[in-house]
Amino acid sequence: MVDAARRAGTAQRRSVFEVFARHLPSGRRYGVVAGTGRLIEELTDFRFGDAELSWLSDNDVVDADTLDWLAGYRFQGDIWGYQEGELYFPGSPILVVEGTFAESVVLETLALSTLNYDSAVASAAARMVSAAGGRPLAEMGSRRATERGAVAAARAAYIAGFDATSNLEAGRTWGIPTMGTAAHSFTLLHDSEEDAFRAQVAALGPGTTLLVDTYDVAAAVDLAVRVAGTSLGAVRIDSGDLPGQASAVRRQLDGLGATATKITVTSDLDEYAIAALRAAPVDSYGVGTSVVTGSGSPTAGMVYKLVAREDSHGEWVSVAKKSTAKLSVGGRKSPLRALDGGVASAEVLHVEQDPDAPTASARSGRPLLVPLVTAGVPDPQYLGVAGTALAREHRAAAVAELPTDAFRLARGEPVIPTVYE
Amino acid sequence: MVDAARRAGTAQRRSVFEVFARHLPSGRRYGVVAGTGRLIEELTDFRFGDAELSWLSDNDVVDADTLDWLAGYRFQGDIWGYQEGELYFPGSPILVVEGTFAESVVLETLALSTLNYDSAVASAAARMVSAAGGRPLAEMGSRRATERGAVAAARAAYIAGFDATSNLEAGRTWGIPTMGTAAHSFTLLHDSEEDAFRAQVAALGPGTTLLVDTYDVAAAVDLAVRVAGTSLGAVRIDSGDLPGQASAVRRQLDGLGATATKITVTSDLDEYAIAALRAAPVDSYGVGTSVVTGSGSPTAGMVYKLVAREDSHGEWVSVAKKSTAKLSVGGRKSPLRALDGGVASAEVLHVEQDPDAPTASARSGRPLLVPLVTAGVPDPQYLGVAGTALAREHRAAAVAELPTDAFRLARGEPVIPTVYE
Repeated sequence: MVDAARRAGTAQRRSVFEVFARHLPSGRRYGVVAGTGRLIEELTDFRFGDAELSWLSDNDVVDADTLDWLAGYRFQGDIWGYQEGELYFPGSPILVVEGTFAESVVLETLALSTLNYDSAVASAAARMVSAAGGRPLAEMGSRRATERGAVAAARAAYIAGFDATSNLEAGRTWGIPTMGTAAHSFTLLHDSEEDAFRAQVAALGPGTTLLVDTYDVAAAVDLAVRVAGTSLGAVRIDSGDLPGQASAVRRQLDGLGATATKITVTSDLDEYAIAALRAAPVDSYGVGTSVVTGSGSPTAGMVYKLVAREDSHGEWVSVAKKSTAKLSVGGRKSPLRALDGGVASAEVLHVEQDPDAPTASARSGRPLLVPLVTAGVPDPQYLGVAGTALAREHRAAAVAELPTDAFRLARGEPVIPTVYE
Repeated sequence: MVDAARRAGTAQRRSVFEVFARHLPSGRRYGVVAGTGRLIEELTDFRFGDAELSWLSDNDVVDADTLDWLAGYRFQGDIWGYQEGELYFPGSPILVVEGTFAESVVLETLALSTLNYDSAVASAAARMVSAAGGRPLAEMGSRRATERGAVAAARAAYIAGFDATSNLEAGRTWGIPTMGTAAHSFTLLHDSEEDAFRAQVAALGPGTTLLVDTYDVAAAVDLAVRVAGTSLGAVRIDSGDLPGQASAVRRQLDGLGATATKITVTSDLDEYAIAALRAAPVDSYGVGTSVVTGSGSPTAGMVYKLVAREDSHGEWVSVAKKSTAKLSVGGRKSPLRALDGGVASAEVLHVEQDPDAPTASARSGRPLLVPLVTAGVPDPQYLGVAGTALAREHRAAAVAELPTDAFRLARGEPVIPTVYE
């Protein structure tokens, strides 16, 4: 596309692309924007190096002029977007990229890869957080995500309200609190469960979490308190009927005097299993597969669409695909979260012809676009450890505006309508 | 775990870990192993660098001795596994890692991240390949995968029988044939559809594929043949009622004399939609979201389990978790694909106590484990471009052994049973 547009003289036309989801994943009430901080950080390193250029040349993918252009590629346009951690609804323009057609169109895959995955994880994680009703959640799903995707998943879950991750690289890169756990292999490595528990307590102190379901849970709980004492930090249960197990283990721990020892449960938890454990004496949850795979919706399904561009006279023109099923609304949008007594009531998208015109909605509410990248330079407040913490705070504030129906786990419509004005 | 085992003197015990799936994704008849080549390639670079070690030290994750051990970490053990492209069934030990406990246990996340994702994609892709009945398939899902996961997905789909990818990095890294497509934004960039088609044909010649559903399909097909001539390579349809659209476009192209112009369809295809297009005049498919997200099963759900280890006398002991729901079978397995007249009839797992004992199944068939890594060094035949091509060939040969019931899309049991001997 870049090659052909360059030859046709259209590659330099100023263009506006929007990222949005046509609908929320089936039955969800709201979505959580994540990946924005990663995207604008990766944008600054988004280059075509010698190895890539040689391959493009050897395989005649683009012509020599376009190769030169790619060699010098630096995005120099502007990007606005929903602040990371913001909520989104069908049509919400969570990212708005303005630049030349050529410099903007090559960002499509980078933008969608980061935003689609991270938002899918964050949107699922947010449901688990509300289902947990204030009990802490740890993300433990690295094994069910790709090597680098696992780090992104830990970050997205944290933004959505998880408290910690077992992914140490996510701790190092994004400042997310980390935690660990012993696997069954650690118990099985030793000649007895007692040897394993003693080894773990010797290394990590009695405040550690002992895994009690390798052989017999009741025997292991007895042993755990015998080895670590009543100051044992926690026990972990990873199989079986979790509500029943948790109640039995709580009674047993209390009977042994370990009244402060906590119970953490893992084992294929998702938002429904977490909700089902609300009445059980569980202190914290470890969630793996379901959070890193978006709990049934592994991508947010966002698209990157041209909505406006210059014509041959330099005038802005709104554009949109016209055929059949996949209708889009052309023109740049100015989005607003309409609020009624502090409670979100609509996602209002004011459609403008002119990208320089001010927001013109008659409704009161919270404008949703913030400048993320100006003339190619990211706003540093959204980057790194500080940006991740800021996104988590922003998510908490945005969730607090939702009507209570947003937290129903049952399938339903988006909790507020999207209105085009 | 490493820290505690080192202090307890058990970290150096020789150990055998197996990677296997307890069950196939819901309703699937077989799975396809992928990710092995990527894993053993990444293994050689799997190190703990200064940045990681400083962070581990600053955060007191491990003690100073373990930090030193991590600084010098090189996997020096042996790995066997199913050859990449091989099929798998519940319990199939697709990877067998033997080394010290410490050097082997730290590979868990790397091994599972690569194998779980790539096998999920390959297993879904294989169903699309059989549903396509010989028509070519292109992987176009990068936007719905993570940045690096997208490259892995392209590779896994190719191993499973896809013919090409739109991910150029997968072409560069793994030698996978690449193809491209024009997006709706390319048409919308131009003042008219005709300008867009002329620009594309000028850059890529009449053999290119023109996207015909931006405005009106019938008008676009007329225009496409007028601009490119009857030697137009193909038209792409990305929306609407695909079987009906394809038939109408075929009649129109034939009527215009463009009898050799092909029709390619995209638009949220999965194996069921591909099968539904069997009777339609479609020449090739482009598949995005569903293949890179495993078509409903975004992880293969494989686990990494200790199955045997030395005891304090240096004797091998089979080990397995004993409690409730998640039973594992201890002991190293020697797997065999039992064949009856060349047709697969069972996955036979001979359970050995002694890892040095030879395979001892009474059944005839094909042994499934090959040496992948010996004393830390990967077998080069499984690496890079050549390894990827080899995996694709191996998949084709293994699929050819399956009974025909394997290719039913309806949910069902694994097509052959897993038998422990």
